[in-house]
Amino acid sequence: MPDQLNDEQLFWALADLARQVLANPRHNDDPVVNWASPEDLVASFSTTVGLDFADHAPAHSVDQVLAAAQQVVEWSVHTSHPRFFNQNFAGPDPLAVAGDWLGAALNTTNATFEAAPVFTLMEAALLNKLAGLAGFPTKSDIPPGLFCPGGSLATLYALQLARHRQQPDLTTAGASTEPLAIFVSESGHYAAEKSAVLLGLGTNAVIKVATDTEGAMLPEALAAAIENTPRSPLAVIATAGTTVTAAFDPLEPLADLCHEHNIWLHVDGCYGGSALFSPQQRHRLAGVERADSMVWNLHKMMGMTQQCTVLLVRRPEQLSACFSTNADYLFQPDKLFGDYDSGDRTFQCARRVDALKLWLAWKAHGDHGFAARIDHAVAMADHARFIIKESQGALAAVADTGFANVVFVWVPPELRPFDLGSLKPENQKQLHQLAPAIKARMQQAGDALLGYQPVNGLNTFRLLIMNPAVTPTDVEATLGRLAYHAQQAWEQAKA
Amino acid sequence: MPDQLNDEQLFWALADLARQVLANPRHNDDPVVNWASPEDLVASFSTTVGLDFADHAPAHSVDQVLAAAQQVVEWSVHTSHPRFFNQNFAGPDPLAVAGDWLGAALNTTNATFEAAPVFTLMEAALLNKLAGLAGFPTKSDIPPGLFCPGGSLATLYALQLARHRQQPDLTTAGASTEPLAIFVSESGHYAAEKSAVLLGLGTNAVIKVATDTEGAMLPEALAAAIENTPRSPLAVIATAGTTVTAAFDPLEPLADLCHEHNIWLHVDGCYGGSALFSPQQRHRLAGVERADSMVWNLHKMMGMTQQCTVLLVRRPEQLSACFSTNADYLFQPDKLFGDYDSGDRTFQCARRVDALKLWLAWKAHGDHGFAARIDHAVAMADHARFIIKESQGALAAVADTGFANVVFVWVPPELRPFDLGSLKPENQKQLHQLAPAIKARMQQAGDALLGYQPVNGLNTFRLLIMNPAVTPTDVEATLGRLAYHAQQAWEQAKA
Repeated sequence: MPDQLNDEQLFWALADLARQVLANPRHNDDPVVNWASPEDLVASFSTTVGLDFADHAPAHSVDQVLAAAQQVVEWSVHTSHPRFFNQNFAGPDPLAVAGDWLGAALNTTNATFEAAPVFTLMEAALLNKLAGLAGFPTKSDIPPGLFCPGGSLATLYALQLARHRQQPDLTTAGASTEPLAIFVSESGHYAAEKSAVLLGLGTNAVIKVATDTEGAMLPEALAAAIENTPRSPLAVIATAGTTVTAAFDPLEPLADLCHEHNIWLHVDGCYGGSALFSPQQRHRLAGVERADSMVWNLHKMMGMTQQCTVLLVRRPEQLSACFSTNADYLFQPDKLFGDYDSGDRTFQCARRVDALKLWLAWKAHGDHGFAARIDHAVAMADHARFIIKESQGALAAVADTGFANVVFVWVPPELRPFDLGSLKPENQKQLHQLAPAIKARMQQAGDALLGYQPVNGLNTFRLLIMNPAVTPTDVEATLGRLAYHAQQAWEQAKA
Repeated sequence: MPDQLNDEQLFWALADLARQVLANPRHNDDPVVNWASPEDLVASFSTTVGLDFADHAPAHSVDQVLAAAQQVVEWSVHTSHPRFFNQNFAGPDPLAVAGDWLGAALNTTNATFEAAPVFTLMEAALLNKLAGLAGFPTKSDIPPGLFCPGGSLATLYALQLARHRQQPDLTTAGASTEPLAIFVSESGHYAAEKSAVLLGLGTNAVIKVATDTEGAMLPEALAAAIENTPRSPLAVIATAGTTVTAAFDPLEPLADLCHEHNIWLHVDGCYGGSALFSPQQRHRLAGVERADSMVWNLHKMMGMTQQCTVLLVRRPEQLSACFSTNADYLFQPDKLFGDYDSGDRTFQCARRVDALKLWLAWKAHGDHGFAARIDHAVAMADHARFIIKESQGALAAVADTGFANVVFVWVPPELRPFDLGSLKPENQKQLHQLAPAIKARMQQAGDALLGYQPVNGLNTFRLLIMNPAVTPTDVEATLGRLAYHAQQAWEQAKA
């Protein structure tokens, strides 16, 4: 067996290192990432234990492994850094991190009551609370949803539930051969396509519905799409908070259309579902209570560690009908409290405990603390909007929904004031190509990390505020650094 | 915002609690679980913060939340306890726990190089090493597989790859209407059925192939099943380590049949794949190098925390072809090192870092330490087999593959010597019903936790050895306690 004493020593050292990451969060003078190429990383780890494994991989000493773990921290992206704006998550809640640690220490599966008595009840409590916020029914004996490892899988499950409603013998006989249609906005998440492929429907089944200029689905375009498709409508995926512009599809008119045509309404609230925590922001999801299902990633705005996703469903009794296989070695009807088991209501078997961290953080912060996290994010985004407006044309907003995303471009002096519609094609191309060059410079400098993506054919930057540690100064400094690198990259491109 | 100082205080207290779980693992005199009903749990938590959430949930004090977290530990199942034999995982490796903690502290997604430079390379290193152990090709620029959140999802992905090989326009046009067949042994995991349902094939597509008395698929039965089905063969799922008896399907003759009929061979090595770590045990998977795909749960025998699953594939270039959607906001071809991104080769988008814990534990233990974990498990199972054999008929083995599972029954004195074939129906029924009663007594006493499940129509107990902390004394004591509770339950049933 491995050397017990060495293992203990290494455990404590690694545990301390993990605590240090939380105790000494990176600040403004630290880089968000020490940028390194794959070759640099390989070279660095070769000084300790090596990244790769030999054919007869040796056991390394405590000191060597600890040094390697320190290299992990050194070369990783610091997503808790107040200038990490790159993803729809940032700034993990330390209580969620600690809750995740406790869950890992207890290391069980959330699939059965017997293996997870406390966590089974916590999942039910959280699902009922979240369903209540969304206005879904909560009176059933069965919890109104599932915890899932990520939003894409939750959307996959939702679409399967939609198909199961139409085709009750789906589970035995397989899917009908009738071509189906899934409607999602042009700004919706690619989980629609991925799910359609896995379900055997193919991407041709995904009908992209036009949006307004901010990225919200146009109800009249949906009505026309339903009217015009020769396929049988399966589901509408309404997005509450698109990935790039944070657009919220108008749920009331979409629910009207779904009701009229008897189409399953699935709300992709992976990102924007958390607006429901804030009395100021929850109006963005008005009508969500009429949906059939909703996915909500608590690991995005709420700072839960990866992952913490719930799928809420209107009819929880459908979950077993759709997913159960009654495995007799696990879900024995004659064992104690077996009717509490969640494992036969979902696809996964063993399932990490994702509920504990959310439960602990929520008990500590209360509804008010959760609302404050959302309101802070929007306030900081408002500050970014203000800075952009006051930038005398150096920065220009491209889409603005007033939520926690700010989408903008840096504008070269020659092209101010910025007007996308009147840009010459060669200038648009120059500007489009500038974004990767700016991003590469920012990565290499480590000043801040934020993403770019095409909006209306032009690469635009996206400042996503998720982290409660972000201050107005961080917003100003990040936009300032971006303008600096942009100017440099522009001059180099012209030279 | 939440109270910063309180949060810091609570973080450190929770982090210490998580460390205490590891520092003071439960020992033989402690219960594996303090058994409580759902009502008991609700009553207990009502003394601190309450399990449920009110409509306007308050923020609770540091002391209250900490007390609640202590209740979590008090009422949870201790899967590191040397007498927890209930699941195909037990005894988390402390280094894996610490690695998981470090990953949670850094909280990023493993989907892109830019967000996870180190972890992207670690995944590649681990996938290449594991593929090498399985004899899969490792020379491609693309890592030979994926990390997945659990074995069922990995099998789902594998079956989609199999379908994609047959139907290259699956991703756009959807699945062909031709009825397909998936072959799996009668002892195989229910992930086959669950996947068939989600893929739209239905459980009718799953053809159960007969096994020998230990649970290993009979190649001649597979040949006949292929011959007899009117459906088009899609895949054979060969099980390397069945859940109940640890049977290993004979991979060489199954690979011959798959080769002959051009059928995708997927090896479900969720549990038994780890036999590849042991020179003494790896012969059980002879022929695995001929498979098209293999799933392997490192969170089972290897003590990684939930979850740590890899899907190995023979043709990694197929992954993008099958799963990519080229989302332009995330997988930009013009960003730095974007070709390293794993996110467009799999179904999930954001993905928890599951690689770090495996990488750290492996670097510390080396191949030799990993082999020792397997050899210890089999040695302890051998000891259980010895005790059963020496029990003078009180215990009887029901199926025995010589691996880490021991499947047995307690035999009432009146029915010794045990012979399942000659049991009267009423005695078989009594014995069958005895298992839940024995299990309930053991849960309530907290002595040990182990599962029961029907084998050949009779509920049998399964001692699963996964935890390196298990000693011969634990094995003896657990079998002794089981016999004691069995005797009590039997007398009560007769009375």
